[in-house]
Amino acid sequence: MIIQTLSTAECTALLVKNRLARLACAKSDQPYVIPIYYAYADRCLYAFSMPGKKIDWMRENPLVSVQVDERGAGREWKSVVVDGRYEELPDRIGHKVERDRAWSILSKHVDWWEPGALKPITPPISDRSPHVFFRISIEQLSGREAKE
Amino acid sequence: MIIQTLSTAECTALLVKNRLARLACAKSDQPYVIPIYYAYADRCLYAFSMPGKKIDWMRENPLVSVQVDERGAGREWKSVVVDGRYEELPDRIGHKVERDRAWSILSKHVDWWEPGALKPITPPISDRSPHVFFRISIEQLSGREAKE
Repeated sequence: MIIQTLSTAECTALLVKNRLARLACAKSDQPYVIPIYYAYADRCLYAFSMPGKKIDWMRENPLVSVQVDERGAGREWKSVVVDGRYEELPDRIGHKVERDRAWSILSKHVDWWEPGALKPITPPISDRSPHVFFRISIEQLSGREAKE
Repeated sequence: MIIQTLSTAECTALLVKNRLARLACAKSDQPYVIPIYYAYADRCLYAFSMPGKKIDWMRENPLVSVQVDERGAGREWKSVVVDGRYEELPDRIGHKVERDRAWSILSKHVDWWEPGALKPITPPISDRSPHVFFRISIEQLSGREAKE
């Protein structure tokens, strides 16, 4: 096995291809990590969530870390870690294009779109919906791979 | 699908059964999440690591979060999140039994024991080894499952 650093382009390709990530936020030095589903576009990871602990924490401290990996053939793997910033996208300031695009990507690919919540039957399209739509803007990313 | 809360016993059973986790640490409000391999024993997760960013950060702030999940049949899944505390176990204060036990479990099951490093050929058994042996003591744990 050889361990190699991934280029920025290779890191981005991995983020584009995958949907499942682990998102870590932090409050008063206590980290909190959970699985999320996301869709990549324009150096951002878009996601939906029910309100709860992670949303409360990210509203208070928008600094997050996101990790995505994939297994290759045999013992090969790739892993990417993102330093990012949480940004909430409420309907009233208009993010319909991004929201519809993210929903369309995620609803196609994901059975388990929000661990801890049931998949809604219709897209969350208004302020009356309990779902929070947000993005993580990528400030830094790094990755490694193991090759046979 | 129904979402259910896992009991403490069910959370522990999932931690015992699995090896791959995502570990989040934090420094000055910036979280950092990476994959690790661990072995569970006595309300602790034991692991080896090469020195580096996560070890530096956990030495400074021992509060961590660890997430482990598994997929069931079809769309079923279980996920457990641990609030824990990092504790380093250098050889000189004696943790040979735990170290040998963790090494024995991990070396049997894990191809990818330390993302970013090659698997050592021999167990790290002395202070001359660069590998850091540590445990995460579990302070709180919670889990959920989705069942069809």
